[in-house]
Parts: sequence; structure tokens; C-alpha cells
Amino acid sequence: MTDTTTPLITLHPDAQAQLFTDARTANTFTDEPVTDEHLRAIYDLAKYPPTAANTQPLRVLYIRPGDARDRLLTHMADGNRTKTAAAPVVAVLAADTDFHDHIPRIFPIRPELRDGLAADPAARDTMARFNATLQIAYWLLAVRAAGLAAGPMGGFDAAGIDREFFTDSSWRSLLVVNIGKPGPDAWFPRLPRLDYDDIVRHA
Amino acid sequence: MTDTTTPLITLHPDAQAQLFTDARTANTFTDEPVTDEHLRAIYDLAKYPPTAANTQPLRVLYIRPGDARDRLLTHMADGNRTKTAAAPVVAVLAADTDFHDHIPRIFPIRPELRDGLAADPAARDTMARFNATLQIAYWLLAVRAAGLAAGPMGGFDAAGIDREFFTDSSWRSLLVVNIGKPGPDAWFPRLPRLDYDDIVRHA
Repeated sequence: MTDTTTPLITLHPDAQAQLFTDARTANTFTDEPVTDEHLRAIYDLAKYPPTAANTQPLRVLYIRPGDARDRLLTHMADGNRTKTAAAPVVAVLAADTDFHDHIPRIFPIRPELRDGLAADPAARDTMARFNATLQIAYWLLAVRAAGLAAGPMGGFDAAGIDREFFTDSSWRSLLVVNIGKPGPDAWFPRLPRLDYDDIVRHA
Repeated sequence: MTDTTTPLITLHPDAQAQLFTDARTANTFTDEPVTDEHLRAIYDLAKYPPTAANTQPLRVLYIRPGDARDRLLTHMADGNRTKTAAAPVVAVLAADTDFHDHIPRIFPIRPELRDGLAADPAARDTMARFNATLQIAYWLLAVRAAGLAAGPMGGFDAAGIDREFFTDSSWRSLLVVNIGKPGPDAWFPRLPRLDYDDIVRHA
């Protein structure tokens, strides 16, 4: 018998819908701008969930319509160029491979981790990409928490974007995401999800 | 002038607290079991946010106390072994490098993507790890949505865990996470987060 007084999911159903069950990837956007204040509010949520040793390697380049956005478009896959051209703001989400420079400030319980990582660029690259990718997902749900829709796009030339925007920088692009208010016909039909028994084993 | 009738974050403040601002990584757990029904409810939220081409490469091995948990402990870093030994359930979160076999069912708009990926194991490995890592973050927030606490641990021998549990399997371990109800003194003090201006640029 199920105890109906204690739901398994304690998050409010409206919040479940806003972040998970009803939220959708947007393919069109209105021309309503996204303010800097709104972008700051997104980060003020996205910054909290965990990263390894609190390293927080995610970096974000926000691009609004103009010359930089035109240059970005040349590195997008054909199928994504029109969507990106129509979004009020586009985020290039990147991993900072020099994230270790912040360690004495953000992981003061073990500041010497900075020096170990300074000597190991390969370990830094792996750690930066893994933890920045976790943070990208936190950020995507924070965009939804801010009442906006996100349109993540994997189809782009990462090396080209890094040359265009991150020359002489330790940032490496991982994902490009359009954000804004959803426009007309913003959603495709929901695609099927794998079943629990497809993805879970017990030991 | 700020319009106080339209908050920048539309997610309910209680939900912001539960998933982002008040939620913490747990280092101790009570011995209250986590039911299979609860694990299924977590996946029923975590499965929805986006992955590239809807590929959903995340796989989860749940391990409860017993022989398998004892074998897992031998692959954990010293600092994590006691925590893992005390958790009611431990999740080994993995990427399935053969995720492409599901594509005709989960991405029916472009089933031929399966064959392209079948011929390119290196691209599959990159795609599996990136998208499973996004899904790990969705899953961590879904654990919080389920009223439980998570304790992610990067300190483990991934090759050892893969040999121990994923021999003759296409699963590759990415993160080990304790879950359960938080126990006594479960939290360390909150570590500092980077400022918006540390991580954001505009172009």
C-alpha cells in the first residue's frame, strides 16, 4: 500500500513541471531581450550545485546580435545557424583549463591542489571538461528556473569558435545554447525516453 | 526601477532552496533505506532534460550494502571509503559507449545516425561521456527533488570499477554518488562560489 501522505518526490509539482517534465528545448524565440540582470540571476542559482573540489571551471561568453554574433554563426552547423541568428542572446559555454588559479580562494581547505594541477595539464583538461559539463546542466535548469527557454546545440566547430573568441585564453568551448522567450512553434514533439530498466542495474 | 511584480527567477523560492541555494553535498547518512520505488521516481524526473540527438547515454548501477558494496569500497579513495561504507545506497554513474544501439527507437527522426556512430568508436566515446555527464547533473538535482541528499565523489579508481562491475560491458564509470537521508553533521561549511564577473564575458 502506498503512503499517499508522503510523496516520493517532495519538490512541488509546479517546479517539477517547470524544470523537468513540461520544460522543452526551444527552437524559436521572440525578440524580447534578455537583460544582464536576468543573466546574473541565472548564475546566482547555477553556481551552487557541486563540482569536484569546488573547482567551478564553467565559463560563459554571452553574445547578443551584432558583429560577434555574425562571426559565431560562421562556426555553427547548417541546421543550427537560423536558430542562433534569431535568438536574443546566445551563450557559449566553456571550460577554463586554468581553473586551478582560483583554488586558494575557492578551496582553501586544500590550497596545494593548485600546484599539483599546475604541473599536470592533461589532468586539468579532463577535470575542467567534466566539471564544466556538470555545471552546464545546472545552468540549463537555472535558465528554466528563470522563466526562459534554452536551446542547446552540439552542432558547431569547437576549434573554430575557440580560435574566434578564445585566442590567448584558457577557455575551451563545450556547448552553444540559445536562450530567450519561446517563439511560435518553439517545440518539436517530445521524443521517447529510455525506460528505467534500460538504464539501471542493481548489484 | 525594478518591477517587483515580475521576479527574475520564476521558480518558487522553496524549490530554489531545495535544488540550488540550500541543498548541500552530504557526507553522512542515516541507515534509512532508499526504496526501489524511490530510485524509479528519481529517474522519472532525471530522464527529461536534453541530450544531444536524445541519445541519453547515462547508465546507473545501484549498490546496496553487501558483497558488491564491499568490492566497490576497494576502488574508492581513502578519504571516501568510510562515507561510501555508511550510505544506504551508492550509485555508480556511467556512460554507455554503445548508446547508439537505441537510436532507431529514441531518435526516430534520424535513425541512420546509429550507423554513422557504429563506425566511429572515438566519436561515440566523446559523445557518451559528455551527454552522460549532463545527465549526471540532472540526476543529482532529481535526487534533491526526491527529498534525499547526494554525496558525489570523484576520488575512485575508474578502471578498477570498470573491471570489477563492467567487464564485457560497454559501460564506463564517471562518478560515484552516495545517496540517502542526511545523517548527523552531514555538511561541511559552504565553500565560496566564483563571482559572476569571474566567469562571464560579453561579446
